[in-house]
Amino acid sequence: MTPTITVFERSPDGGRGLARDMRVRWALEEVGQPYDVRPVSFDGLKRPAHLARHPFGQIPTYEAGDLALFESGAIVLHLAERHEGLLPEDASARARAIGWLFAALNTVEPPIVEREQAPYVEGDQPWHAQRLPLLEARIRARLAQLSARLGEADWLDGAFSAGDLMMVMVLRRIEGIGVLEGFPNLVAYVARGEARPAYRRAFAAQRAVFADGGTTDGRA
Amino acid sequence: MTPTITVFERSPDGGRGLARDMRVRWALEEVGQPYDVRPVSFDGLKRPAHLARHPFGQIPTYEAGDLALFESGAIVLHLAERHEGLLPEDASARARAIGWLFAALNTVEPPIVEREQAPYVEGDQPWHAQRLPLLEARIRARLAQLSARLGEADWLDGAFSAGDLMMVMVLRRIEGIGVLEGFPNLVAYVARGEARPAYRRAFAAQRAVFADGGTTDGRA
Repeated sequence: MTPTITVFERSPDGGRGLARDMRVRWALEEVGQPYDVRPVSFDGLKRPAHLARHPFGQIPTYEAGDLALFESGAIVLHLAERHEGLLPEDASARARAIGWLFAALNTVEPPIVEREQAPYVEGDQPWHAQRLPLLEARIRARLAQLSARLGEADWLDGAFSAGDLMMVMVLRRIEGIGVLEGFPNLVAYVARGEARPAYRRAFAAQRAVFADGGTTDGRA
Repeated sequence: MTPTITVFERSPDGGRGLARDMRVRWALEEVGQPYDVRPVSFDGLKRPAHLARHPFGQIPTYEAGDLALFESGAIVLHLAERHEGLLPEDASARARAIGWLFAALNTVEPPIVEREQAPYVEGDQPWHAQRLPLLEARIRARLAQLSARLGEADWLDGAFSAGDLMMVMVLRRIEGIGVLEGFPNLVAYVARGEARPAYRRAFAAQRAVFADGGTTDGRA
């Protein structure tokens, strides 16, 4: 059966592919699973029909038959467990790849989201400019550790996995503010992810939503 | 084989059980798996031997045979997949329980950690007192959604699962500041988790580290 995912009706970032549906689109493309899309407006996120699918009123969601899932990490893992291509076969390597999926979401992403949201949450406060260096120093500390672990390898632990998919997407959220750019091996790592055919197909698909009439408010 | 987990050599929260090893201890107790403990000092977290196990220099880690894992979410999921007691058998219910594990870590925990760390990160800044209400409002918004979904149920989706284990531990991090206390069904939910025999055994074990000479600096 063809699964359905929810995405923003209008691309909030102008088609840059930073919204969390991109993670699921990419995973679906990696495993060769076609999917349908249900667009949701920003107002629609708070309506009962959507909250029944996603109690926190976000995207993406995933529906296939009697299964309804939310949380991009859970959806990517679900796909990775049921199809080939996103997790190694060896049990220990598989557990480690899933470890990187959690590291992307629980260790690397939180300080990045804080930095990303700061202008919206407190951009009008007098302390905003003073906090930015603190927020960026926190991200830099995490990236230094990640960069040291990655070294000269192509991917975080052997072959490309769901952990790399998620880490690349998380790192993309800070492109352009000069933090990621201080770690050339991480920049190259992100570029390797973006060069994958499945990534390109997913990116084109989310960008089409933007081209079809989405507007940008600059916020992912 | 008996797995080994790393824990703080000295309980940083005075035995309150808020450090992330408690999540793994609780999971191990739920599935009836004995374990060994390797204490790590705060200085030791940054040493090469520990960074080889955990690239971000944190606890817990998990080692069993040739497998070394980090990230509490990944370790709890690994245990839940290999033992009975933390995930339902039905495939869809299982995927949803894993979804709650991710929701605890990627949607509910980040604003809680921000609030928890604020006094340490910027407690000496003039804006600190002004930011606290913003930080707490963000947590409250998430808890309102979580509370609405939980309703009068005992657990988030059917029987107790790894998702509940993680959510209870995440919610415990904001006990006592008056935010969680505004949602009586969440307070009762946390209490149900704390009343489980496995939780009590795990709590006693981490507290013994404190009693054995740990000191408190008030920070998890």
